[in-house]
Amino acid sequence: MQTLKDRIRKEGLVLPGDILKVDSFLNHQIDPKLSIEMGKELAQAFSDEKIDRVLTIEASGIAVGLATALALNVNLVFAKKKKTLVMNEDAYTADVFSYTKKEHNTISVLKKFLPPNENVLIVDDFLATGSAALGLAELVNKAGSHVAGVGVAIEKAFQPGHKNLEKAGYRVKALASIASLKNNQITFTDEAE
Amino acid sequence: MQTLKDRIRKEGLVLPGDILKVDSFLNHQIDPKLSIEMGKELAQAFSDEKIDRVLTIEASGIAVGLATALALNVNLVFAKKKKTLVMNEDAYTADVFSYTKKEHNTISVLKKFLPPNENVLIVDDFLATGSAALGLAELVNKAGSHVAGVGVAIEKAFQPGHKNLEKAGYRVKALASIASLKNNQITFTDEAE
Repeated sequence: MQTLKDRIRKEGLVLPGDILKVDSFLNHQIDPKLSIEMGKELAQAFSDEKIDRVLTIEASGIAVGLATALALNVNLVFAKKKKTLVMNEDAYTADVFSYTKKEHNTISVLKKFLPPNENVLIVDDFLATGSAALGLAELVNKAGSHVAGVGVAIEKAFQPGHKNLEKAGYRVKALASIASLKNNQITFTDEAE
Repeated sequence: MQTLKDRIRKEGLVLPGDILKVDSFLNHQIDPKLSIEMGKELAQAFSDEKIDRVLTIEASGIAVGLATALALNVNLVFAKKKKTLVMNEDAYTADVFSYTKKEHNTISVLKKFLPPNENVLIVDDFLATGSAALGLAELVNKAGSHVAGVGVAIEKAFQPGHKNLEKAGYRVKALASIASLKNNQITFTDEAE
């Protein structure tokens, strides 16, 4: 998605540890028009499937998740994060490790908002190791529903997330795919040799 | 806003301690079309002001905040919550007490995303004691900007939030205003005697 790649190139900050900061338009300050465009693109990418629901994770997945759910005309559900495991028989839970924050979280969704026999599209702002998306997929599987695929705004293709998700059998769509952040240079996969 | 009031009456659950659960469409599962409608209504309510930015708080303010920012054609910024005070010279911080969760949080926004001399509309899903909105207003004031007003989806008018905000000089608009949750009955202010 060219608009997104242009924004990343213009405003993205590369930090030590292969961190890409895009908090001026994606996950702290948010450009609503760009969010809506991204949602339309992700909906389009999965338009050959009948999607029943979009599942994302708080907080930074909510904007692009909402826009995708709007474009698909379905409900959005966002998983909640807790640092400690909360046992709750009314909720599906999974363990997720955040690469950026170096911390474990238990993510959860109330069972009533993840019914069985649905086709659920997982959406997030970032894909790096794939831990968040795999955790969300675990919730969908526990619910007895099917993962239609995983759609993200930005993926770091040099990290194993994309491959891990495909290995697990999930289709992956990233609107911008980054091949490398070496030497503080942002290189997209379609520009890499 | 009639659509919202109808949804609250149909799906809202009253819990002990004057808690109103509307997590089937507002803050866990989200109805994107309703979010967009609410955003338009809030934008409309402040259409006599030139708004430069919408400020909300993670996680459940993001959907209605995004929709309001979209309708106003401005950026959204969401404040982040931490349970412990994080000193960060690049961020404005304020202390907020959550009525529902009975916990203190330090909320913060990076200074670069809250420039001075702006007219900032504060948006949130709920208004009860007003602590979150007052904390957000404190961030705006620290930034040297002006609070255009506070727009919320639902207010519990029998709690002091609305009055506290008006006392502090802020204009308040709630799309649905609840007069009472007594005896598990949801009564809106325009229906109360």
